[in-house]
Amino acid sequence: MDALHVKWFEELLGVENVYADKAHLLAYSYDATRTTYEPDLVLFPRHEADVQAILRYCNTHRIIITPRGAGSGFTGGALPSNGGIILALEKHMNKILEIDMENMVAVVEPGVINMDLQRAVEAKGLFYPPDPASEEYSTLGGNVAENAGGMRAAKYGITKDYVMALRAVLPNGEAIGAGKRTIKDVAGYNVAGILIASEGTLGIITQITLKLIAKPKLKQTAMGIFPSVKDAMNAVYKTMAAGVTPVAMEFLDNLTIRAVEQKYAKGLPVDAGAILITDVDGNLDEEITTQLVTIEAMFLANGCTSFKRANTAEEAKELWFARRNASPSITVYGSKKLNEDITVPRSKLPELLDVINAIAQKYEVKVPCFGHTGDGNVHTNVMVDGTNPEELEKGHKAIKEIFQATVDLGGTLSGEHGIGLSKAPYMTMAFTEGEMELFRSIKRAFDPNNILNPFKMGL
Amino acid sequence: MDALHVKWFEELLGVENVYADKAHLLAYSYDATRTTYEPDLVLFPRHEADVQAILRYCNTHRIIITPRGAGSGFTGGALPSNGGIILALEKHMNKILEIDMENMVAVVEPGVINMDLQRAVEAKGLFYPPDPASEEYSTLGGNVAENAGGMRAAKYGITKDYVMALRAVLPNGEAIGAGKRTIKDVAGYNVAGILIASEGTLGIITQITLKLIAKPKLKQTAMGIFPSVKDAMNAVYKTMAAGVTPVAMEFLDNLTIRAVEQKYAKGLPVDAGAILITDVDGNLDEEITTQLVTIEAMFLANGCTSFKRANTAEEAKELWFARRNASPSITVYGSKKLNEDITVPRSKLPELLDVINAIAQKYEVKVPCFGHTGDGNVHTNVMVDGTNPEELEKGHKAIKEIFQATVDLGGTLSGEHGIGLSKAPYMTMAFTEGEMELFRSIKRAFDPNNILNPFKMGL
Repeated sequence: MDALHVKWFEELLGVENVYADKAHLLAYSYDATRTTYEPDLVLFPRHEADVQAILRYCNTHRIIITPRGAGSGFTGGALPSNGGIILALEKHMNKILEIDMENMVAVVEPGVINMDLQRAVEAKGLFYPPDPASEEYSTLGGNVAENAGGMRAAKYGITKDYVMALRAVLPNGEAIGAGKRTIKDVAGYNVAGILIASEGTLGIITQITLKLIAKPKLKQTAMGIFPSVKDAMNAVYKTMAAGVTPVAMEFLDNLTIRAVEQKYAKGLPVDAGAILITDVDGNLDEEITTQLVTIEAMFLANGCTSFKRANTAEEAKELWFARRNASPSITVYGSKKLNEDITVPRSKLPELLDVINAIAQKYEVKVPCFGHTGDGNVHTNVMVDGTNPEELEKGHKAIKEIFQATVDLGGTLSGEHGIGLSKAPYMTMAFTEGEMELFRSIKRAFDPNNILNPFKMGL
Repeated sequence: MDALHVKWFEELLGVENVYADKAHLLAYSYDATRTTYEPDLVLFPRHEADVQAILRYCNTHRIIITPRGAGSGFTGGALPSNGGIILALEKHMNKILEIDMENMVAVVEPGVINMDLQRAVEAKGLFYPPDPASEEYSTLGGNVAENAGGMRAAKYGITKDYVMALRAVLPNGEAIGAGKRTIKDVAGYNVAGILIASEGTLGIITQITLKLIAKPKLKQTAMGIFPSVKDAMNAVYKTMAAGVTPVAMEFLDNLTIRAVEQKYAKGLPVDAGAILITDVDGNLDEEITTQLVTIEAMFLANGCTSFKRANTAEEAKELWFARRNASPSITVYGSKKLNEDITVPRSKLPELLDVINAIAQKYEVKVPCFGHTGDGNVHTNVMVDGTNPEELEKGHKAIKEIFQATVDLGGTLSGEHGIGLSKAPYMTMAFTEGEMELFRSIKRAFDPNNILNPFKMGL
């Protein structure tokens, strides 16, 4: 990067908020995809006015900017794949500005870590439900930019269901507000709605107003063991169609169960086709009981061979152990995990799992699956030997076929990870040329010079 | 309109689907604002392909199109204020295409009447909560285009919270899909999100996929009488901050109570400052009871002088009578109703009502208020003699000051009616020039030739 630019940024932010040395650039070159792209510069804005000045300058000088929270994304959204500046929001812009008890709303800066907000509001009896697996380190700005989901989505929805208002800086340096601290607001276009899930390509989010709800007082966990994954998938959607909305309805397939057992020797049922683990919540004992009675009945009617309720928090933790440790365990099947978060309408889960199984056999790869079946979101992991190019190639072919099957079943390429770089090549599988052109028009409307995280999302 | 154009449309749609005669044009010249603009032509598309052909033709020939459902909007969204074509979607495109019990989703055409969907899904034990006051005649396409709210919003949210996916035709004739039949979908920009509340300015909605939920089995109604509107407003937000989320929490102020009593002589408390009427729901008796116990306690702690629970459906209907008849009753105060749907954060309601009262006194106009206090949405009615220009002028000045106060309190010009024509002059009060310019850029991205409902929303 031109030394004059660097000097300008140092004068704006102070030298301590500008990193240009090799070691620091490396530290901001990665995300959870394990792909790396080195930025030319890392900047730490202190407040919205800094973001405005930086964007205005970059827009004039056509310098590319990629915003970044914790860098925990799975699809490369925060990677500076075209060089330029990393705008790192986690260092200074990380304050919970307000917890408004009267309106049950939190106002935060983008760098606040999800779990820090959850803890702060739970201390006041309130609840912020979106719980991506990265909740302990991912930032709310990143959660909004990717529209993060999590385990509680089937009952409580995802990030977008909690965003009431945003402040953002557009590429031209203009700071805008979108939305209000009200449930109802229909004045002007829903700009907050389109900024959510825009993966840092339309504007830099500088403030987030989030809806909070009352924290349910009670929660109980149960587990069911099924002879086949198809039985489990049938049990899931039939339970929910029966009117029960569990907080979480998670599954592990046989490969995942075996992997966890191999690693932790917990006495898991290694011959089971699938395990379902579910949480229900409410404020009354009877609410919990009636939900669990229905779940047990629907599970048993759909092939469940063993149903167990946790009677203590300790037992609940034990039932959750396999699910919590699924992701790190499946590496027993290969050094490289091609991990996708496809999602289909719940009733299509049995069919999807059949197709995945057929594709795995065709390419002779192992594809352990687990995830959020309550909302149709299956974490599909094609495991390969990362050092074997032929196997990698087979893995990628398998992924492509799995995406096609997902789209054919009315599903989506991504339930919660976003498109970023990793899924960009598959966008035309899911969208028509007219839809892609509309995305490009929207991008141009916000960012005519294409300085903000360009070429992501297949644009 | 050029006879050649008319002939082209007649060939496309059949003469029976093209109205060009005076009587029919008049019939499509109004909406609930009682302002009229005569279109040059009314077209009745039969399906998405018709909509595509019409838009492609109009885009080429720069013919203006305004989409229309039931024409029940309060802000002129469906008025052809710049002439051109009314695209009437209620005649043919009015089918419930699917009620998918397994995924709890309904797929409808835009001309389906809200209540027809509610009845169809309730017959299957499911529930579509958004209930604008126009639910018996307004269409779901219009509900989506305006992001309609209703009484149940405080607990169940508004139209946008139920839209999972849309199909729409862009001004260039391209048909696009946006969203999936899944809770989670983060592939591509949230185009469905920006089409919602876009008031027919960005695209023509041709298909809507709506989330359904399980219908709660029980419901109970209660009413509280308060000495002042301020006490009632305090009771509202403190009840909700105590963790109770009633389905509805509606209020009437003294002027509204008197108006209903004058018209119907129901023995209402004409000296009361305000009445609150609330519904709670759930699946268990105890859920209902615990909610009502909290509500009663919070009401009594905030000045409530009389609290009454309905023990039968008949009693509930009686408690709801005054609220249901509020809107037609207040005409006792003036022939012309300047009716606004301002919304503030719930905790600002006491202050807002104080300000409205002061403005009413300043301009010597009566401003009866009622509405959805559970979500901060107050229907504010400045009543004037429509034949008296001086009084009309005072009324409009009062409205302008009420809008300013609303914005100053962190509220919005419109909670559920939209901007359309009527509120367009006030947009710059609520939005900065940078925000307005962004709206215009978005409009251009979708509709570069400005053929779709142009100049609405202050654009």
